[in-house]
Amino acid sequence: MKIVMAHGSGGNATRELIKDLFHKYLANDYLDKMEDSAILPVSEYPLAMTTDSFVVTPLEFPGGDIGKLAVCGTVNDLWMAGAEPQYLTAGFILEEGLDLDLLDRVVASLSRTAKEAGIKIVAGDTKVVQGNGGLYINTAGLGFRKSGRHIGTDVIREGDALIVSGDLGNHHACIMSQRMEIVNSIQSDCANLGPMVEDLLQAGIEVRAMRDITRGGLGTVLNEIAEASNHAVEIEEKSIPVDPEVKSFCDILGLDPLYMANEGKFLCITAQEHAERALNILKQNPLGTKARLIGSVTETGKPLVTVKTRLGGKRVIDVLYGEGLPRIC
Amino acid sequence: MKIVMAHGSGGNATRELIKDLFHKYLANDYLDKMEDSAILPVSEYPLAMTTDSFVVTPLEFPGGDIGKLAVCGTVNDLWMAGAEPQYLTAGFILEEGLDLDLLDRVVASLSRTAKEAGIKIVAGDTKVVQGNGGLYINTAGLGFRKSGRHIGTDVIREGDALIVSGDLGNHHACIMSQRMEIVNSIQSDCANLGPMVEDLLQAGIEVRAMRDITRGGLGTVLNEIAEASNHAVEIEEKSIPVDPEVKSFCDILGLDPLYMANEGKFLCITAQEHAERALNILKQNPLGTKARLIGSVTETGKPLVTVKTRLGGKRVIDVLYGEGLPRIC
Repeated sequence: MKIVMAHGSGGNATRELIKDLFHKYLANDYLDKMEDSAILPVSEYPLAMTTDSFVVTPLEFPGGDIGKLAVCGTVNDLWMAGAEPQYLTAGFILEEGLDLDLLDRVVASLSRTAKEAGIKIVAGDTKVVQGNGGLYINTAGLGFRKSGRHIGTDVIREGDALIVSGDLGNHHACIMSQRMEIVNSIQSDCANLGPMVEDLLQAGIEVRAMRDITRGGLGTVLNEIAEASNHAVEIEEKSIPVDPEVKSFCDILGLDPLYMANEGKFLCITAQEHAERALNILKQNPLGTKARLIGSVTETGKPLVTVKTRLGGKRVIDVLYGEGLPRIC
Repeated sequence: MKIVMAHGSGGNATRELIKDLFHKYLANDYLDKMEDSAILPVSEYPLAMTTDSFVVTPLEFPGGDIGKLAVCGTVNDLWMAGAEPQYLTAGFILEEGLDLDLLDRVVASLSRTAKEAGIKIVAGDTKVVQGNGGLYINTAGLGFRKSGRHIGTDVIREGDALIVSGDLGNHHACIMSQRMEIVNSIQSDCANLGPMVEDLLQAGIEVRAMRDITRGGLGTVLNEIAEASNHAVEIEEKSIPVDPEVKSFCDILGLDPLYMANEGKFLCITAQEHAERALNILKQNPLGTKARLIGSVTETGKPLVTVKTRLGGKRVIDVLYGEGLPRIC
């Protein structure tokens, strides 16, 4: 069975799709009310709100799918602000011709990932557009900053440590392999970063700021951090963790892991004196075994990113204009 | 200038698009921080959360555009739950080839509509996909139910009054005219319903439930209400307000206003003894001058929608399977 335009009419075809497919996986007290908005309890904590649209192709890939990605991406954005994810909305744009079995698997995966992340899907929407069987998902997330701790680029200081939670480039290399039909065992690193962040916060680590290293890669994230905080940062090329298989893949295709997207890695900036402890905490998590201290914040008032190369030189890391791989997330 | 895939890369092309276009209209303290999530103050009220994706074509139409629609649609869903809209997220999916001037006008309109509605855009996202110059917008909204009043289909009772806030079918007839290149003066009714809802709540009207009458039309909304509340509702055909030009349009094309989409109309269910007063309040609002009492809740335990026809008969109003006009909102 395929999606047809009538599935987006708002009539019985829409209701059947929602009842037979979405309801099967997403049913809960909030959604079952079928009201225009979900009513959520009063919160005693500051709120964190974020949104992301997901347009990745292929829709399923080793290590994940667009449904898992749509939850992890938004959940991670909340955690990066030090907020515990609580509520999620999901808007599905289905292209005519989309295979219903594929949609079923994606929604099942989205539901499973949301449950594992402890976030409730409280509102949803489905639209159908002309096209070639594609699927876009938008999620918006609401979380609570229970720790009371202020986390943001505005508290970054000279001397702070830069830690990366693991190998870089896996998601990018995986998606690219799929599209180019290259056979290898590279999997997307698509994951919920929550457990790692929670461990850091609960241990009282002085976390200044965090960023998940997605579209644009570490190079882009570091530039955003440098600009937003108005600080220079320096990293060491040799300390950047890359999986050997991804490294070979990059060498053959001339790719730089510094600009490759990840979906389960983050940059954590901590007070220098907490860096060692933070690193150890991350390494104890199955997702963080490859965590590395990669550099530090070197100067105030100068938004610049430099890398110490393997040969001992220094070069500036800029933001690329475009990149080799669109629709990565 | 047109959108190209590089605009979705996360590199400098993305940053330029965000800086030169989105920032121009949407800049505020929340977005300017460029963090992964917006941090919002603690609220003392229950929260209301909702989402909607907007895929209407054409992107601009008499009376509105996809940007205005994307704000009004979500703001209205919050008001329908009796919640005052406060924060909005906006996710843009741009198709390659999208005209940048058109995008500029749409984002300007979205920004203006949000300001008028008193809602702050706190998080955003932009993706680029292959296609033919189209544009999809997802918005998620967060509001506060300040009145403390419980509004929902679960408090509907036998005898309650059904009020429609104005003429039906305008948005649907407008979009259809545009696509069929029929020349007439029909405008979309796309509007923020907030002022009308606020007036009702502030006057202490016993509002049981509200629904904006969008995709699927009044016929679908009444069926949803009947099902969710487990009550029979009956309306009078002759009391359904339709603008004469829309009426002629429907007569020629064989359309039924009962199933036509609106973007600035709502169904309000009130206690019978408050119906007259509620109607007068709505009529005093420029958007509600054509408000009408159209029927009542007639029986408990029987989810059925009937209409008394002009000739004195009765017929059941069902939900259609599909409908004549996809991508209406």
